[in-house]
Amino acid sequence: MTDRKDMTLTSSGFFVSQEAPISCENPTPTPTSPAPDILRCAYMDLVVTDLKRSRDFYVDVLGLTVTEEDENTVYLRSLEEFIHHNLVLRQGPVAAVAAFSYRVRTPKDLDRAVAFYEELGCRVERRAEGYTKGIGDSVRVTDPLGFPYEFFHDVEHVERLAWRYDLYTPGALVRLDHFNQVTPDVPRATKFMQDLGFRVTEDIQDEDGTVYAAWMRRKATVHDTAMTGGDGPRMHHIAFSTHEKHNILAICDKLGALRQSDCIERGPGRHGVSNAFYLYLRDPDGHRVEIYTQDYYTGDPDNPVVTWDVHDNQRRDFWGNPVVPSWYTDASLVLDLDGTPQPVRKREEASELEATIGADGFSYTRRGDEGEMPEWKQGEYKLGHQL
Amino acid sequence: MTDRKDMTLTSSGFFVSQEAPISCENPTPTPTSPAPDILRCAYMDLVVTDLKRSRDFYVDVLGLTVTEEDENTVYLRSLEEFIHHNLVLRQGPVAAVAAFSYRVRTPKDLDRAVAFYEELGCRVERRAEGYTKGIGDSVRVTDPLGFPYEFFHDVEHVERLAWRYDLYTPGALVRLDHFNQVTPDVPRATKFMQDLGFRVTEDIQDEDGTVYAAWMRRKATVHDTAMTGGDGPRMHHIAFSTHEKHNILAICDKLGALRQSDCIERGPGRHGVSNAFYLYLRDPDGHRVEIYTQDYYTGDPDNPVVTWDVHDNQRRDFWGNPVVPSWYTDASLVLDLDGTPQPVRKREEASELEATIGADGFSYTRRGDEGEMPEWKQGEYKLGHQL
Amino acid sequence: MTDRKDMTLTSSGFFVSQEAPISCENPTPTPTSPAPDILRCAYMDLVVTDLKRSRDFYVDVLGLTVTEEDENTVYLRSLEEFIHHNLVLRQGPVAAVAAFSYRVRTPKDLDRAVAFYEELGCRVERRAEGYTKGIGDSVRVTDPLGFPYEFFHDVEHVERLAWRYDLYTPGALVRLDHFNQVTPDVPRATKFMQDLGFRVTEDIQDEDGTVYAAWMRRKATVHDTAMTGGDGPRMHHIAFSTHEKHNILAICDKLGALRQSDCIERGPGRHGVSNAFYLYLRDPDGHRVEIYTQDYYTGDPDNPVVTWDVHDNQRRDFWGNPVVPSWYTDASLVLDLDGTPQPVRKREEASELEATIGADGFSYTRRGDEGEMPEWKQGEYKLGHQL
Amino acid sequence: MTDRKDMTLTSSGFFVSQEAPISCENPTPTPTSPAPDILRCAYMDLVVTDLKRSRDFYVDVLGLTVTEEDENTVYLRSLEEFIHHNLVLRQGPVAAVAAFSYRVRTPKDLDRAVAFYEELGCRVERRAEGYTKGIGDSVRVTDPLGFPYEFFHDVEHVERLAWRYDLYTPGALVRLDHFNQVTPDVPRATKFMQDLGFRVTEDIQDEDGTVYAAWMRRKATVHDTAMTGGDGPRMHHIAFSTHEKHNILAICDKLGALRQSDCIERGPGRHGVSNAFYLYLRDPDGHRVEIYTQDYYTGDPDNPVVTWDVHDNQRRDFWGNPVVPSWYTDASLVLDLDGTPQPVRKREEASELEATIGADGFSYTRRGDEGEMPEWKQGEYKLGHQL
Repeated sequence: MTDRKDMTLTSSGFFVSQEAPISCENPTPTPTSPAPDILRCAYMDLVVTDLKRSRDFYVDVLGLTVTEEDENTVYLRSLEEFIHHNLVLRQGPVAAVAAFSYRVRTPKDLDRAVAFYEELGCRVERRAEGYTKGIGDSVRVTDPLGFPYEFFHDVEHVERLAWRYDLYTPGALVRLDHFNQVTPDVPRATKFMQDLGFRVTEDIQDEDGTVYAAWMRRKATVHDTAMTGGDGPRMHHIAFSTHEKHNILAICDKLGALRQSDCIERGPGRHGVSNAFYLYLRDPDGHRVEIYTQDYYTGDPDNPVVTWDVHDNQRRDFWGNPVVPSWYTDASLVLDLDGTPQPVRKREEASELEATIGADGFSYTRRGDEGEMPEWKQGEYKLGHQL
Repeated sequence: MTDRKDMTLTSSGFFVSQEAPISCENPTPTPTSPAPDILRCAYMDLVVTDLKRSRDFYVDVLGLTVTEEDENTVYLRSLEEFIHHNLVLRQGPVAAVAAFSYRVRTPKDLDRAVAFYEELGCRVERRAEGYTKGIGDSVRVTDPLGFPYEFFHDVEHVERLAWRYDLYTPGALVRLDHFNQVTPDVPRATKFMQDLGFRVTEDIQDEDGTVYAAWMRRKATVHDTAMTGGDGPRMHHIAFSTHEKHNILAICDKLGALRQSDCIERGPGRHGVSNAFYLYLRDPDGHRVEIYTQDYYTGDPDNPVVTWDVHDNQRRDFWGNPVVPSWYTDASLVLDLDGTPQPVRKREEASELEATIGADGFSYTRRGDEGEMPEWKQGEYKLGHQL
Repeated sequence: MTDRKDMTLTSSGFFVSQEAPISCENPTPTPTSPAPDILRCAYMDLVVTDLKRSRDFYVDVLGLTVTEEDENTVYLRSLEEFIHHNLVLRQGPVAAVAAFSYRVRTPKDLDRAVAFYEELGCRVERRAEGYTKGIGDSVRVTDPLGFPYEFFHDVEHVERLAWRYDLYTPGALVRLDHFNQVTPDVPRATKFMQDLGFRVTEDIQDEDGTVYAAWMRRKATVHDTAMTGGDGPRMHHIAFSTHEKHNILAICDKLGALRQSDCIERGPGRHGVSNAFYLYLRDPDGHRVEIYTQDYYTGDPDNPVVTWDVHDNQRRDFWGNPVVPSWYTDASLVLDLDGTPQPVRKREEASELEATIGADGFSYTRRGDEGEMPEWKQGEYKLGHQL
Repeated sequence: MTDRKDMTLTSSGFFVSQEAPISCENPTPTPTSPAPDILRCAYMDLVVTDLKRSRDFYVDVLGLTVTEEDENTVYLRSLEEFIHHNLVLRQGPVAAVAAFSYRVRTPKDLDRAVAFYEELGCRVERRAEGYTKGIGDSVRVTDPLGFPYEFFHDVEHVERLAWRYDLYTPGALVRLDHFNQVTPDVPRATKFMQDLGFRVTEDIQDEDGTVYAAWMRRKATVHDTAMTGGDGPRMHHIAFSTHEKHNILAICDKLGALRQSDCIERGPGRHGVSNAFYLYLRDPDGHRVEIYTQDYYTGDPDNPVVTWDVHDNQRRDFWGNPVVPSWYTDASLVLDLDGTPQPVRKREEASELEATIGADGFSYTRRGDEGEMPEWKQGEYKLGHQL
């Protein structure tokens, strides 16, 4: 990644630069086989331990549309989607992610995916009839970072309900926006994702170049997935979009009315990273769901990469509101192709939690003003201000 | 106040009842003189220690309109106001409130105010030419609770800028909505305000009838002022209204862009009490300003009084987000009629902070579910969950 | 009303003045009996010809809450209401208004209403048990303008659903805001309403003092009712409030999705008069319903009266969008106390439609710029520009 | 294009199908040279006759950011843009479009553009130093439809102001979204754009297959440009995006406050086509500007093509509000590479204006309900209902 001294400091307090090659210890080898042409994150295959409770949450509370369901599985989509589903809820013994599923441009990209991952020595399985209803020929792999991925092209089309405003709730979810993964070594993960064809849009670093998180995209938004530094491989969250900010507030209001406000983990707020408006919920199994709206276009090849200083108190919440510890520490298990939870490896580099609110951590609102927090705020949890 | 067993529990988790006489130890006597007919909270006379910094905050950041100003004073109004000002910033040695100023229906109500407070033995001063620019004949008093009040009717009219959308900012403040006062004995204060003609709309109590806060109104909104239990007399906040919720979010965004997010103390969020959407800021002197929108009509004489349980985690924030301790503990001094800060008396009854997050405190999301907070949330500050 | 030369022209293009006595030919006599103390417009008693279709419209499309219903009647309320209903749909042979119903402050105000109207020689009926379910002791009259009014104080309380966000739709209606009546002689009607205790907030006049419409209030909003010049007595519309503008847009979106967009008559848009955001619908009988949000506080006794020039193209729609002719010409019949439609008398003064888009009418965007409309706009219906 | 009998009728009343080859009389030949890889519409080079008035409109009213300016030229960008400009205002003798400018993926795509258009016999000019400030090596062509296009890759980067909320106005424009072109033969134009690499997302047809307009994209939104049937080549409009719908309403409010509401031509409203919320303005030269928000993701190769029936009254405005005639008839001239206005050729096929509101035209709200418009609406302009 770009060295900070080669970045440009903006008037907003973060840096911009052009995407740079990543050097990391122990990089995954770059395959000679071309990467599949990935269109976008398409759906998550999610194991839940109480299907009824999960269905209540995703359908009755969040308002996702049931495309199809059976005793053990519910296939859900957002209002603007025309493919069969964006989320599969699957009854199982352990709450976990069975697959991060991406759509590829052509059927041939499945062959490319097979070759790409086989060259990396990954376990690869292909099933012509697909792994889930509605999905055709598809490939599942465990990637070098330990995450379960699926690739597919063929998919059943269903009606795009975008114009069906009679079905909209005040908090209507209109698109699947992105995934977020937890991994111990962010540069290593990012380098691998670059090989897979992803482009970095934003990251969080400290002055020494330690990378705490990175956002990367295929479609022209800020991300299709992000790599968050932490014990992994785990799934940090899945994110759905609303049209406007008031839709996200309406979800909070509804949770309050239902006396389920304890599933609100963090937010609502404005992200620094991505500039989007956000809310984090926890589903009945503790899987984290983000509701997200209004990031920016990133489709040009020279789209400026934004780098936030880890001590910038506005990087995660542009209003300086605190990040609750559980948001840093909790995440969902991911499964291998046999359905067994992947072992979790500890992050060895500095943790963002410790760097910002720990004994040696600190945060600032204004660069160079580390000691200037108002007195009434110094006792607050939200600060972690230690100077 | 009504006994809880005579209240009706609603499907939203709070209680309703009809306003009841208040019994308290050491009540202020009810004057035989009729109370002045108060229209609404009209402006706050606020002493600031650095006029330029305060002007920057209220004018450049919050966008209030300067009606008039001189070397030591700035007169500000909101966009829908037609009277001279809603806020006076006055350079002075100690940050404090010089007056909570209310408009009365007729000039004769000033005579009534004089008689009402003199009968109570309060210090009362009248000045035919008014105490501030733009205001005519007016009365200032120190009330039995130690607060400085002003009453006036005559006032200079200025242009109501409601239709001047070319002057609106994304976070435009359109009305002064209410004051909020800190006082040690809430029932005593509430009883006095009832005598002054105020009607209670909501309150926070515990099962034993301890009252932690009460909201009361003259105009047909949830409040013109509230009494918050704590060491007092002090001023908790002054509140301005926006048209919509996104206007409040825009204020947060602007503060982030200006790298002044550290003046955000709490929120944005949805109140349980009042059902309004809110944000709390701290001005350069630490005076607290609320931005507020969308409470409800309360003008019928039998408007149901809403009582929230102090342990209900949604009473202060309907989404269950935590109240930061400074919000409970900090408040501004108030002045006597000579400009000397009033001494602050400690609250002796239970504190809301202690009752909810202290060693013996607790909060619940669902009545009867005190032990059911999700595990990932139990370590959080926001809970104060101790069962 | 104030003569235009005594009004103050504002920077927004309209005039302001203080409310003035109205001189009109053939005024209704001012009773010596005091007027009842009216709190607010409370509900409309509306006769519909196909109860099922009307229920579909008000409940399934607009989302009003059914408090109670039987074979011939549906009692509906808005989400923030705590009295039994804001609208009664009553199956009947002719689509019409059976009563404009107002709540009064005390039971004694009913005696005052009886005396007030009897002194005017009006037909007055009182029924201790009320005329509709949920309403107690009440008085119905046919007023001197031919309109059927009801007054009541006693009313069944129901749960205020303001906090029940799980019940909100994207276009949630939260309050009954106002009525609007059509009458041939606006000054005569306004003078009568002043006698009844209403205060004028805005009006539309021409340079010669012809009054085309006037808005008047009891509660502290722009109106509880308005008098629109036209053939009458008829009912122009009933208006419900939403919290925000997007809620009104959501109603349009839903009507589009349901393929019922042909019930949109005018808007959405911003009113000049009242500064509110609006939408006009027509129900299955053609009764007009306004959806309305964000007017301003009018509760001070010297609240400036706003006068719009009838030729000001922004008076009815602040964005200069055209008023469709049906909006001027169509209105609902009103009934006498026996349920017979009142005869409609023609307006003899100038019509607003003719004054603005008729052969001799004209409209301007900028005072003094009557000939400066852009060429591409001159052919448009929306202009009626004839200079 | 797909025959209607092979399309699928959706529950929203329009049809979907997969993009199909277009047969048209007199097609432009498909070049053997590969098309340049176009990223997105990037800026419009616009000639205005009074630079100061135009600057007032785009900068002071609409709030675009001036990147740079000199005596004869103003370079403007939207808040989320990082390239030098999205709009160039250039003083000139005739109001017209000098270039529709697209950014391409790589410098080599400029060579491809040259070869592609030269093979078509088009006039092609290349200038290494660029045609406008901030833009490097670029190619200008007059395309086979008579439109002036520019292609470039190299461009000066400027600061993306997305996070600078202190600079946002209530109606902030955040992105350039699309162009819209008027051309007599829509299928011929669409076929040519497919050859250039564009994908069709929506269109308007009648039962006989006459195509009235088509929308097509490179980036993953509903369009980078649209072809509107009419006398051409002309420019119909340029469109900028806001974040939310209330931002568009705020532009209307500001225009009202400035007494410039006569520059509002149509809207605000919800489009049927694109599902976006819209407003059309006319600048001081009559150039049409759309303000637009919230269409949907179209980036999958099998994204369903939406076909609207020309008689569907919700196709252009989902709420059934009328399209003003000037919107159909007026458009801006386009220039050849010497700066001379291109001659305008008449459309010979049916006009949408005539088909929907002309003597033989008709519109319906519900398919099959052509005769069921409510009586009060039948006299309205908005209908054009002739059955």
